[in-house]
Amino acid sequence: MNSKVNVAIIGSTGYGGVELIRLLASHPGVEVTSVTSSSAAGSPIAEGYPHLTEIRTDLLDDVDAALIKSKADVVFIATPAGIASKLVPSLLEAGLKVIDISGDLRLKSRELYQTWYKKEAAEQQYLDQAVYGLAEVYGEAVRGVDLISNPGCFPTATLLGLIPAVKAGYIDPSTIIIDAKSGVSGAGRGTSLGTHYAEINENFKAYKINKHQHIPEIEQVLGDVAGKPVVTTFTTHLVPMTRGIMSTMYASVQGGYSSEDFVSLYRNYYEGRRFVRIRKDGTWPATKEVSGSNYCDIGFSVDERTGRVTIISVIDNLVKGAAGQAIQNLNLMMGWDETLGLQFVPIYP
Amino acid sequence: MNSKVNVAIIGSTGYGGVELIRLLASHPGVEVTSVTSSSAAGSPIAEGYPHLTEIRTDLLDDVDAALIKSKADVVFIATPAGIASKLVPSLLEAGLKVIDISGDLRLKSRELYQTWYKKEAAEQQYLDQAVYGLAEVYGEAVRGVDLISNPGCFPTATLLGLIPAVKAGYIDPSTIIIDAKSGVSGAGRGTSLGTHYAEINENFKAYKINKHQHIPEIEQVLGDVAGKPVVTTFTTHLVPMTRGIMSTMYASVQGGYSSEDFVSLYRNYYEGRRFVRIRKDGTWPATKEVSGSNYCDIGFSVDERTGRVTIISVIDNLVKGAAGQAIQNLNLMMGWDETLGLQFVPIYP
Amino acid sequence: MNSKVNVAIIGSTGYGGVELIRLLASHPGVEVTSVTSSSAAGSPIAEGYPHLTEIRTDLLDDVDAALIKSKADVVFIATPAGIASKLVPSLLEAGLKVIDISGDLRLKSRELYQTWYKKEAAEQQYLDQAVYGLAEVYGEAVRGVDLISNPGCFPTATLLGLIPAVKAGYIDPSTIIIDAKSGVSGAGRGTSLGTHYAEINENFKAYKINKHQHIPEIEQVLGDVAGKPVVTTFTTHLVPMTRGIMSTMYASVQGGYSSEDFVSLYRNYYEGRRFVRIRKDGTWPATKEVSGSNYCDIGFSVDERTGRVTIISVIDNLVKGAAGQAIQNLNLMMGWDETLGLQFVPIYP
Amino acid sequence: MNSKVNVAIIGSTGYGGVELIRLLASHPGVEVTSVTSSSAAGSPIAEGYPHLTEIRTDLLDDVDAALIKSKADVVFIATPAGIASKLVPSLLEAGLKVIDISGDLRLKSRELYQTWYKKEAAEQQYLDQAVYGLAEVYGEAVRGVDLISNPGCFPTATLLGLIPAVKAGYIDPSTIIIDAKSGVSGAGRGTSLGTHYAEINENFKAYKINKHQHIPEIEQVLGDVAGKPVVTTFTTHLVPMTRGIMSTMYASVQGGYSSEDFVSLYRNYYEGRRFVRIRKDGTWPATKEVSGSNYCDIGFSVDERTGRVTIISVIDNLVKGAAGQAIQNLNLMMGWDETLGLQFVPIYP
Repeated sequence: MNSKVNVAIIGSTGYGGVELIRLLASHPGVEVTSVTSSSAAGSPIAEGYPHLTEIRTDLLDDVDAALIKSKADVVFIATPAGIASKLVPSLLEAGLKVIDISGDLRLKSRELYQTWYKKEAAEQQYLDQAVYGLAEVYGEAVRGVDLISNPGCFPTATLLGLIPAVKAGYIDPSTIIIDAKSGVSGAGRGTSLGTHYAEINENFKAYKINKHQHIPEIEQVLGDVAGKPVVTTFTTHLVPMTRGIMSTMYASVQGGYSSEDFVSLYRNYYEGRRFVRIRKDGTWPATKEVSGSNYCDIGFSVDERTGRVTIISVIDNLVKGAAGQAIQNLNLMMGWDETLGLQFVPIYP
Repeated sequence: MNSKVNVAIIGSTGYGGVELIRLLASHPGVEVTSVTSSSAAGSPIAEGYPHLTEIRTDLLDDVDAALIKSKADVVFIATPAGIASKLVPSLLEAGLKVIDISGDLRLKSRELYQTWYKKEAAEQQYLDQAVYGLAEVYGEAVRGVDLISNPGCFPTATLLGLIPAVKAGYIDPSTIIIDAKSGVSGAGRGTSLGTHYAEINENFKAYKINKHQHIPEIEQVLGDVAGKPVVTTFTTHLVPMTRGIMSTMYASVQGGYSSEDFVSLYRNYYEGRRFVRIRKDGTWPATKEVSGSNYCDIGFSVDERTGRVTIISVIDNLVKGAAGQAIQNLNLMMGWDETLGLQFVPIYP
Repeated sequence: MNSKVNVAIIGSTGYGGVELIRLLASHPGVEVTSVTSSSAAGSPIAEGYPHLTEIRTDLLDDVDAALIKSKADVVFIATPAGIASKLVPSLLEAGLKVIDISGDLRLKSRELYQTWYKKEAAEQQYLDQAVYGLAEVYGEAVRGVDLISNPGCFPTATLLGLIPAVKAGYIDPSTIIIDAKSGVSGAGRGTSLGTHYAEINENFKAYKINKHQHIPEIEQVLGDVAGKPVVTTFTTHLVPMTRGIMSTMYASVQGGYSSEDFVSLYRNYYEGRRFVRIRKDGTWPATKEVSGSNYCDIGFSVDERTGRVTIISVIDNLVKGAAGQAIQNLNLMMGWDETLGLQFVPIYP
Repeated sequence: MNSKVNVAIIGSTGYGGVELIRLLASHPGVEVTSVTSSSAAGSPIAEGYPHLTEIRTDLLDDVDAALIKSKADVVFIATPAGIASKLVPSLLEAGLKVIDISGDLRLKSRELYQTWYKKEAAEQQYLDQAVYGLAEVYGEAVRGVDLISNPGCFPTATLLGLIPAVKAGYIDPSTIIIDAKSGVSGAGRGTSLGTHYAEINENFKAYKINKHQHIPEIEQVLGDVAGKPVVTTFTTHLVPMTRGIMSTMYASVQGGYSSEDFVSLYRNYYEGRRFVRIRKDGTWPATKEVSGSNYCDIGFSVDERTGRVTIISVIDNLVKGAAGQAIQNLNLMMGWDETLGLQFVPIYP
């Protein structure tokens, strides 16, 4: 490519934002020309993030559509929930392409958003306009669009682990149980007792049981794939580690398929999609095996005794679950190869 | 009590063994008179475990029934699987009372043991004789017996979390799915790549899916309680922490019971049993909240959308899941209060 | 003892406070009759600390001298710095005996306090009255007094590691360099970016270099022991773990003493003091080897090449570095054996 | 560059080896054409390292000079100590350029090697031939040579932190004390009780005090820079984390220089060297701020009270302390820009 695309990052002082900065720093087609922060505008980004010393020496910009448009063509929104819904209209109007990581535009129903997020939803037209950027399933749909909604971290691991089986009818969607686990970075950089080191270290806990806002997102997509409403049981747990999500999923097998059949089905479904790796029968991925990378690794165990399959899916929540997948969507939006700038080897150990 | 009971510990250089030493050091009715090790006999136990410096200055004894009998009345076996089955006959014959923590005597069926443990089973008469020491369920059964089989760590958390609901018919046993997570100390002190620090830290992984030897143990007891065979889905995961087990359990609710109904049911069932704490509706226990103690804490979430209940049960795998429960069994065996010497406050943070 | 001493804990919702609750729960001579909190008075203590469920069912009291005196004879102050200085006068006046863990009464000089703590110092008469409770050095001095100032966590590990050598002239006090490391619980339960899980996990950092408020405390005591002013270099680091302090200390050896000579010197100095364990030559203690206990373990390495000794001293910051030592002081204050209720085996692993 | 340089990695199943694979995968001038292992030859490398699934599908080669020469022009040796000394002669003879990460060729004196490493040293001619690859100090010296000895992890952090001050006479070399801390990956992938998860997690310990084999390496270089023999006190500690080294260094300041003077001195010394970042006065680097990157960050605190400076230097032990610095040396050896393929943003959090 001859010239680079200029991008801005709103919410660049959060973990999703700095991960975008990390990944885009080595992307051959992109220049990050503006990093913004409503709380720290005017100060150097490296002050709050010393790992960026001498890498980014610029000051944080204010969150202002016109200012951003003067510097960039595409903008990532990496704020907490409830902010993007307010920013998107002016950003689009200013002529920017928008990739929203925050979750505000994922649910097509305003009511559902308000029920689960306990916040005012975005206007319906933006919910309608936003294309859900789960590249391995809906990849082509994002080409050329102006507004992409990036999937949530848990939905990414979960949906990539379930969709081929649901679509092929290998499992009964009404029996799906999802036991998810996440590293603590998923909670962001805002301090709270729930992310206080001494409370989390050497501790394992469940939270938001049957109440997590990713439940309707998962069900919306599964219902779309299944062609009928799907209701799931979904539990989230906090793991004493920084990065990584594992989704352990259970469902009743329909049709007597073996683990090997699942491996074959998934390999076919994800053929050509570099970021999904299906593990061979009898092995299952661990979160560290995708750490720092855009991979989603999946493994299976069908148990003949119970007639159920256990599906294990892992991602790095900040990469495939946030910044990496957002860049993958940018690549597709721009008509580039989806792997551009994302071919990292996982960091191990 | 006037005089102390003398006890010996076989396998005292493993984590279960040193935890027995820690807990028994402050038990008012017990004196640990012999710590044995087949691999390190003759050397001071504090050499391999410097935290015992000046606390235990004795040398490790050989594993010899006559020697042990000359020093003790009761013996704990805290070896890896496959050893107790060989030791128990001579220990009983020597006149010792035996509490086996190793798992060799938990399954009543030799075939089942050999299938899941991949080792030669103990002789049937010892399997028949051994009383399963899940105190809150079968407590009275261990009074006065000579041979107790201490439950496994995962079965302890899981069974205490499921039995009242299965017994009362609140859940359909055929729908039980158990997603279990354990700290790394459960794997013992033997070194391996699977317990190598750099492989486990910042990592979360599943293992032995549908193959764990605790599956038949759980099913044996659930079947006993349900009055019919029960088959379950059971997955184990390794958490990057040292101590703690959480069992997250799912089942279909029969009869429209709410979370509060479960709370009431369990509080009634465990009435008077100090080591089970039922959390109030809407809160769930974390592993750190029982760390270092003999508690098993349990919480519930019934989801009306799916008709399923999620049950969370936590223990310290080395205490309630091993050494603490073994001492609780000793207490009952001796006719003492089951809490004697075990009333520790959990260590937090 | 026939009747128990009633004690109150001010600041019982901090980590030092809950550790006092944990340790005192099994102390044979003490009853905790009041737990207070200025921020959460009126609510059950177990609400903020679910590990205390069914163990302490009382509500938090307000911080009120008369109320406390109506319930207790002795009070522990476990607040952040800057509060005890205000509370102590009324507590003493109400007739309570006071053990202050907060640090407000450790420095004899108001100027020094204000320089290093950046807060208003207590009135001079209380600084004069408070006896510094480093039991192994000044133990007898606290017998029968009304006001004890409990040493800081770093000073405890550091002073116990240095005093015998300074006193005996084995090292040159002007060459002392102290490189200290602490687990994160030392920073308390108040949330901040510096104790946010994702910032601390997999991270090791130095802080407050040459600025830590424990520097003048260490120098005050070393100067007292040396008989002349001592100035030291002291660096603190944060270790990604919850509990534990290690002080690694360096000094030039005077007189050609070997590691074995240091071992002998320290064993003699601490003869009869159960909580200091001197490791044999060639071995050094690790923090986990004292975790959960009141021990301070010390080891040495004299290097003939450089003429310097390296001294390693470890404690559990919440026990020997705070709550445990405070109870040890209570024991001495009451004329009891200093080990009463404190004879825990360290928790390992 | 038109064509890529083919490189082989001996010891590619160790942590240093897989880190080379990770970093070289995105290096624009290099192709890794052979990964070898004496213990696992013939099996796919991704079998032991599932994070490489679909990234490297080749089988491990035997360690054979002729075979390697048929595939590569340059070879990295990333074995444990004591192996490179035997391999180097045949590799050089086969016409390969060699970069040794193992430490066998760092000490110029065979006696010193044998004293500290307790192994047979390499022949003197290879010790003489090997150029010590500390790029920021001796960078130009490695251009075009055939045999480079890559510095050790602790020496890298320590020497970069000390050399400008020693060279400029700002500190007295005879007063240098080095308190070093390392993550556990530095101990390699070989299992042992010392790297067993439950022994290391929530633990902090010192090891090899005054005995570490990196002592003579540090002293050799410091002596070279100072122009006279230097003897140092050096202590190593194990931090419960996977990656990262911090060297906290102490020395007496000569000439009344302030922290700001040190900052200026170091900024001048490292002018143009992208991988050393000098922190501004009053701030110090943490290990996570360089994690996954080739940076070495350095900060200072001069204490007027003691006349000493505290210098903090951090690196990622597997990158700047091993594989990254080895690639930096390859770049220089090839006449490329030293940053080629190494411009990673640190991974944070």
